[in-house]
Amino acid sequence: MDRLWINARLATMAGDGLGVIDDGAIACRDGRIAYAGPSAAAPQTADEIIDCGGRWITPGLIDCHTHLVHAGNRAGEWAQRLEGVSYEEIARAGGGILSTMRATRAATEAELVAIALPRLDALLAEGVTTIEVKSGYGLTVEHELKMLRAARALGVTRDVRVATTLLGAHAVPHDYAGRADAYVDLVCNEMIPAAIGLADAVDAFCEGIGFSPQQTARVLAAARAAGLPVKLHAEQLSALHGASLAASHGALSADHLEHADEQDVRAMAAAGTVAVLLPGAYYFMRETQLPPIDLFRAHHVPIAIATDCNPGTSPTTSLLLMLNMAATLFRLTVTEALRGVTVNAAAALGLADTIGTLEPGKACDLALWDISDPAELVYRIGFNPLYARVKDGRCC
Amino acid sequence: MDRLWINARLATMAGDGLGVIDDGAIACRDGRIAYAGPSAAAPQTADEIIDCGGRWITPGLIDCHTHLVHAGNRAGEWAQRLEGVSYEEIARAGGGILSTMRATRAATEAELVAIALPRLDALLAEGVTTIEVKSGYGLTVEHELKMLRAARALGVTRDVRVATTLLGAHAVPHDYAGRADAYVDLVCNEMIPAAIGLADAVDAFCEGIGFSPQQTARVLAAARAAGLPVKLHAEQLSALHGASLAASHGALSADHLEHADEQDVRAMAAAGTVAVLLPGAYYFMRETQLPPIDLFRAHHVPIAIATDCNPGTSPTTSLLLMLNMAATLFRLTVTEALRGVTVNAAAALGLADTIGTLEPGKACDLALWDISDPAELVYRIGFNPLYARVKDGRCC
Ligand SMILES: [Zn+2]
Ligand SMILES: [Zn+2]
Repeated sequence: MDRLWINARLATMAGDGLGVIDDGAIACRDGRIAYAGPSAAAPQTADEIIDCGGRWITPGLIDCHTHLVHAGNRAGEWAQRLEGVSYEEIARAGGGILSTMRATRAATEAELVAIALPRLDALLAEGVTTIEVKSGYGLTVEHELKMLRAARALGVTRDVRVATTLLGAHAVPHDYAGRADAYVDLVCNEMIPAAIGLADAVDAFCEGIGFSPQQTARVLAAARAAGLPVKLHAEQLSALHGASLAASHGALSADHLEHADEQDVRAMAAAGTVAVLLPGAYYFMRETQLPPIDLFRAHHVPIAIATDCNPGTSPTTSLLLMLNMAATLFRLTVTEALRGVTVNAAAALGLADTIGTLEPGKACDLALWDISDPAELVYRIGFNPLYARVKDGRCC
Repeated sequence: MDRLWINARLATMAGDGLGVIDDGAIACRDGRIAYAGPSAAAPQTADEIIDCGGRWITPGLIDCHTHLVHAGNRAGEWAQRLEGVSYEEIARAGGGILSTMRATRAATEAELVAIALPRLDALLAEGVTTIEVKSGYGLTVEHELKMLRAARALGVTRDVRVATTLLGAHAVPHDYAGRADAYVDLVCNEMIPAAIGLADAVDAFCEGIGFSPQQTARVLAAARAAGLPVKLHAEQLSALHGASLAASHGALSADHLEHADEQDVRAMAAAGTVAVLLPGAYYFMRETQLPPIDLFRAHHVPIAIATDCNPGTSPTTSLLLMLNMAATLFRLTVTEALRGVTVNAAAALGLADTIGTLEPGKACDLALWDISDPAELVYRIGFNPLYARVKDGRCC
């Protein structure tokens, strides 16, 4: 064994619950977990042995929905909103998503990396070992690819696993105003083929203010034809059955879902599509429509939780806070919340075989915590009890 | 001059707004601000000169309402609540405030300090230089005084200004069940006299589940007779005109205030009583009744913001997050939110002459920030851009 963590309490997330092992150990070989279980049956020797002093170990956390790479700052326009300036006035003055698009287009790949690093570091400081990063503020082939390359570069600059998602169909850029179908042509015929090898999945924003179900279906079909798995921003502001559409394309996840109904949930269950809930956006937008948690439970749809880190609707970089918001605002249990940033978040990225639980064969991505009960990770608000972060068996 | 900060942008909080000085400097002598203003008129020499590189400086932040000192852990019972266990079942099993009381009574003063330090350190890491700490989980003379000594000790262990508040009238302890008036006698006749010199103020919990307005009035009168200023937990869950009562005793602040009405607000305005809003408790309790912000504005009642850090209803240690919650949930403006953790929080502690603004004569308590606009301090969620913290002129 390369490394052995002893005298630990484990929340393995194997099986249905937290998978608690009160007196546990983890062994690592070649970056993968070779053993995770009771101390009694653990390997006894390794090149390095780390006494955890009774601390808890969970899988490294996974933030499975972020827009971490972007330039510009929307704090000022948000302050204006609080002063009573209308969204229309701000949009007329060049604010909103198009201001982020302009700033992101103007930034080089290296600048995008540098701007995203403090946000990434905030996530890593909380025990995150895998993040998903979407494009979607470039909205041309050139700038969408630049965003994806910046996202990949984050995974080289820091010790973190990055899953990239092409979100070319995030908004209709101003130069395509009134020609949304032509922009969808660009996404399907040029962006998606160009992103093969650079994007791990394809996403779209199916919404009245985004793309129609018909346009979204074209994007998802093009992605599948290119061999890329799909995800979808669905049912955030209105009920368009985008979640059902996503499921019909075998989507890894449908995300937001405040307005999903039983038809959607049944379709997701049948397709194995994960429900990714984004309580930060719900909170920041002062949404009142709750996602249909009881339907997800009844139909055994796996629930994941993510930051949705983005400058317009969820300017957050705390996945731990999202755990609390998922419990406080959505009434998820502690077990549901913690599975939402580990095993189910892994499934939402198509990485269920690689990460998300403490089981032999998985990557040795760990978070060690100064807590006496895993519930503390969900209960505390704005407090970070991380003791150490381990990625592929390396302390970092 | 002992120390000079140059090349800074200042939000002095002097006057009515943020008091912005775009090209500013601050000079310190003997721990106090000797100059805070435009670079052009600033002193040119000092023993130490610090180039701030254009960063923003605000007054050190002030958390004017906390229950930071306490033992025990309520994460487990909260997890049970999410699983559907009723509050009554948890109370029968020994949970709730009485579990915190038991754990706090069982802890030594040194243990209380050790347990509170990680919470304190989380606040200091966000630029807090002054905190208020209440007793209220001892509920005997001996254990209330122990809590106050632990609070004072925090200010010796770390470089932070601590204002202590006796909250003997927090709850009726079980040994006084059915004899609340007798417990109020104990508070008035023994606790308050014993706390002179150890408590900077006296507080009570005026509520259906706490103390009646009549009982509260006795506590406030006893405090005033002992020469101690008063504060009050008022109008959190119901409308009892506790805020009016507090104002009639010249209270420094009335806190929570979700159910305050115009009569209360007029009384507070006339008495100069600060409205301390606690958005963390509002959020965690899923409250829907908003405090009457427009009335506070109309009657020019100063608004402060605090964490209310406590294990039952606001387990938070992030004052920056409270800024966001004050804006997102209560619709405070950026200026109101930032004044709420500086100049108005100072007033809520009776320290308006000492701290809260960047003005000559005030303590040189500073927070330096890696931001491009003060709005970022309110807009971001779970992100800490603190660059440096200065207390009484010392970097710490
Ligand atoms: Zn999103
Ligand atoms: Zn309180």
